[in-house]
Amino acid sequence: MEKSQKGAFIVLEGIEGAGKSTALRAVTAFLEESGKKVLHTREPGGTPLAEELRNAIKHEWQEKVLPVTEIFVMYASRAQLVENVIRPALSEGTFVVGDRHDLSTVAYQGGGRGVSLEVIRSAKNMAIGDFRPDLTFLLDISPEQGFERVRKRAEASDRFENERLEFFRRVRKAYLDAARDDSSIEVIDASRTESEVTADIRQRLEVFLCSRG
Amino acid sequence: MEKSQKGAFIVLEGIEGAGKSTALRAVTAFLEESGKKVLHTREPGGTPLAEELRNAIKHEWQEKVLPVTEIFVMYASRAQLVENVIRPALSEGTFVVGDRHDLSTVAYQGGGRGVSLEVIRSAKNMAIGDFRPDLTFLLDISPEQGFERVRKRAEASDRFENERLEFFRRVRKAYLDAARDDSSIEVIDASRTESEVTADIRQRLEVFLCSRG
Repeated sequence: MEKSQKGAFIVLEGIEGAGKSTALRAVTAFLEESGKKVLHTREPGGTPLAEELRNAIKHEWQEKVLPVTEIFVMYASRAQLVENVIRPALSEGTFVVGDRHDLSTVAYQGGGRGVSLEVIRSAKNMAIGDFRPDLTFLLDISPEQGFERVRKRAEASDRFENERLEFFRRVRKAYLDAARDDSSIEVIDASRTESEVTADIRQRLEVFLCSRG
Repeated sequence: MEKSQKGAFIVLEGIEGAGKSTALRAVTAFLEESGKKVLHTREPGGTPLAEELRNAIKHEWQEKVLPVTEIFVMYASRAQLVENVIRPALSEGTFVVGDRHDLSTVAYQGGGRGVSLEVIRSAKNMAIGDFRPDLTFLLDISPEQGFERVRKRAEASDRFENERLEFFRRVRKAYLDAARDDSSIEVIDASRTESEVTADIRQRLEVFLCSRG
């Protein structure tokens, strides 16, 4: 009988067009090849209530949506997801692969919209305490190149994707600033080809799994 | 031409069955007789997004709803209402009459569910800063008497109204504790007859309006 092991929470982050979906498939394939049970999450969302909150905050309202409203709805959603889905899965040994997590709030609401990091940290602390991913892949790309990819996919836009280039420059900077201070964030050069990025991710994942013994 | 005057934010608070709706009609009638323009709000809710959040948090979810989720959704709703509705109305000289406001969070989530007042204050500060009602009528009644009235009305129950008597004892205590430290909160003995309560409210409103000159 195999030794029971704790799962891990692995998160994909990056601006629009960085290739999160492709990276998510690569991470999932590698983990499954390694015999891990994998669960996907996305944020905001991931529980019935959290998905309801996602819809509420992504909708294009006629009224002004305050930055603090975004922050609170994001963290309400995150609290539900962490407590009701991620923690239970991890304790059963599942590997949870997240399409965005806390770093998105730091980058988008903090860097992008200028909410102070103190406010974000304070809300985070109330919502999820010191819970954090074991590993984050930050897919780094210039907003120009990201936008070009999104345009090619001709994706439907939502309120966030309508924002301007300058906004995404601030988001990217906030992402990279956070990565400098946090060794659990691996910055991936996402300007390369899909196969190069995938190979890079697989290699780093291998190192991560080895380091856990 | 009349001198332009600032409006006021007057809030009705109390546990289920205390008679908030009756009091709201009494306050409205008195203000309109005094020539004031009146706007009603209810919380959570009161803007399109805030109503969406109200529905999300009042729904009976199969998943566990965390106290911090309730707090964050309440304050997201409150931030939208204060900024987009209440402040603009007050600055136009309108009298805003609120069916619940911040004190409900202190009493229900704080007193009732045991969320620390520090967490609530911190969330409040992020959401609405030092915004506060000019006058609050706290309709005070024992949970037993309140429940009896609700039963007579045979009201549809929601998640909050399903809570037990003990819960409402804690809510009542938190309400009364808050009133002791805040001279803008008028405690109304709501165990009396409707006409007695209404007369009391009208008298105190008259004093309030006079004191504003």
